[in-house]
Amino acid sequence: MRKVNGWAAQAPGAALERWEFERREPQAREVAVRIRYCGVCASDLSALRHGAPAAYPLVPGHEIVGEVSAVGTEVSRFAVGDQVAVGNIIDSCRKCAPCMAGRENWCERGVTLTYGSTDPVDGARTQGGYASEHVVNERFVYPLPDGLDPAGAAPLMCAGVTTWVPLRRWGAAPGRTVGIVGMGGLGHIALKLAHAMGAETVQFTTSATKSTEARRLGADDVVLSSDEREMAAQAGRCDLIIDTVGAPHALEPYLTALAVDGTLCLVGIPEQDLRVDPLSLIVGAKNLAGAGSGGTGETQEMLDFCVRHGITAETEVLPAHQVNTGLARLARNDVRYRFVLELDG
Amino acid sequence: MRKVNGWAAQAPGAALERWEFERREPQAREVAVRIRYCGVCASDLSALRHGAPAAYPLVPGHEIVGEVSAVGTEVSRFAVGDQVAVGNIIDSCRKCAPCMAGRENWCERGVTLTYGSTDPVDGARTQGGYASEHVVNERFVYPLPDGLDPAGAAPLMCAGVTTWVPLRRWGAAPGRTVGIVGMGGLGHIALKLAHAMGAETVQFTTSATKSTEARRLGADDVVLSSDEREMAAQAGRCDLIIDTVGAPHALEPYLTALAVDGTLCLVGIPEQDLRVDPLSLIVGAKNLAGAGSGGTGETQEMLDFCVRHGITAETEVLPAHQVNTGLARLARNDVRYRFVLELDG
Repeated sequence: MRKVNGWAAQAPGAALERWEFERREPQAREVAVRIRYCGVCASDLSALRHGAPAAYPLVPGHEIVGEVSAVGTEVSRFAVGDQVAVGNIIDSCRKCAPCMAGRENWCERGVTLTYGSTDPVDGARTQGGYASEHVVNERFVYPLPDGLDPAGAAPLMCAGVTTWVPLRRWGAAPGRTVGIVGMGGLGHIALKLAHAMGAETVQFTTSATKSTEARRLGADDVVLSSDEREMAAQAGRCDLIIDTVGAPHALEPYLTALAVDGTLCLVGIPEQDLRVDPLSLIVGAKNLAGAGSGGTGETQEMLDFCVRHGITAETEVLPAHQVNTGLARLARNDVRYRFVLELDG
Repeated sequence: MRKVNGWAAQAPGAALERWEFERREPQAREVAVRIRYCGVCASDLSALRHGAPAAYPLVPGHEIVGEVSAVGTEVSRFAVGDQVAVGNIIDSCRKCAPCMAGRENWCERGVTLTYGSTDPVDGARTQGGYASEHVVNERFVYPLPDGLDPAGAAPLMCAGVTTWVPLRRWGAAPGRTVGIVGMGGLGHIALKLAHAMGAETVQFTTSATKSTEARRLGADDVVLSSDEREMAAQAGRCDLIIDTVGAPHALEPYLTALAVDGTLCLVGIPEQDLRVDPLSLIVGAKNLAGAGSGGTGETQEMLDFCVRHGITAETEVLPAHQVNTGLARLARNDVRYRFVLELDG
């Protein structure tokens, strides 16, 4: 077993504390990764707040960058010392149709999540990346591309791929207009990606103060979503809107802002049921879609794209012992635009 | 002016009665159509029940088959005596992008509906096809294809094109599985179309008694949607589900029945807001879409397809004076599968 220093909540709602735990040694095709950076995702906050009692102690974190520290006997793609990245999946069945297609996030048997899953090897609960080391099937380890800032690359592993997949699926490209709702961790990366894909970009935000920043990050236009008149003027404008906001909000203004055949894709996870006027979908043949995470094919494609276009997240790097400050600030949307923890072993 | 004998409701909820009214003469590019058959659509029932007081007298009907009885001076495509069909649109701006693309149903200025619109020429309220004659811009008149039973072809003009458009858009084809929810006017045509397009078809119905009929109409499988266990067994099965049911019903069982990337498309018009668990869209990257009607491009394409495959609606033809019986039976879903009125001049 490998001793690991992590940051864990011992109960729902508790602050994170230092916690020493053990991970098993890498299996034949597994890689141990010494973690250097781990992004702080809104889903970490959600897990910490809403986890079932059995989920504790809970070490969150699934936006990982680090260095290979050990490899199993059959690992071929990595050697000790390689700089690598890991996202929210550390294993899957690798045999079902989605797995074979590199879309392991929809594995028919269910993936092993980076934290909060039951490890099929030893039955233990998986613990995440707010820790000194993780052990991951090599299929879910990605070479960290040269030229990407390591701390800024960490959030690509969840926020990046989660927005990349629907941007690709729904055709963000030159000649198309893409709206982004919310300008947090996911939103600001979606904006950078959509801009680099050549789409006209419209940032929807409730904060008038974010306008200059939005333009710096790639917005061709910024719309104050709390201004009903401004929103009504967007009718029919966007071919695709990526909605990154988890807090409850009305969808109709965004459905109205879609062109004929347009798609509103949810990537934030609203905690309440959606209410939708059916006519807002039927008139104009519009779509309300969902997306979440990505498989190895999409993740690698996204990383390659980010290297070509020099895209990383805008980060505030915090030493790991400030994790509770980071979580508290994230809870009140006080972050520009992603906290990344620097682990100290 | 042209004297027309129609069947009108004089007030919300009133029975239809014979009503003589006038239509204007055809303009240069318009065609007068002596109506032989008119389908009875669920939206007619909805208009009769829920119309604003100003909407009366109201002559419904937008699934029209008949014969050209007069043509304007510049009409080039039709001559008196031609057998033709007309759907739910009789004019549009013809200049906006959707109109130029043959998708006039999404005309940016709004179409002139076959009934219930304000006629831009004379400001009168348009009246529908439960009548001896209509006057229509030639763009929205379709030659009735040889070899299609005229009464059975009438419902293609609304029920047909409304289901055709999403079946095409979302890829009904060999190797794909298409579910149909509801087996009424729209559902039974969707089933025939999807089957002819080569998809594996699954008919969802609440009536176990419809199973044999569903198979006769093209269903490869029939699922009793009121049986929770049977529904749960469909998880991940369908690439596309066309939901033709207007009455309130839970969407989650159908979202569950979708494969990864699958689409649930609403073509019935639910009268209440939809409630959807966001995770039912996010997990599996699923899509809740709407569709309604079609433009001239899609309508012609659908008619051509129906000729090639010998597809018409299954009808019960009623003499026009039995219209109230038909509407009452439609209201309790007592129709297999579409009433068509035979007009008597």
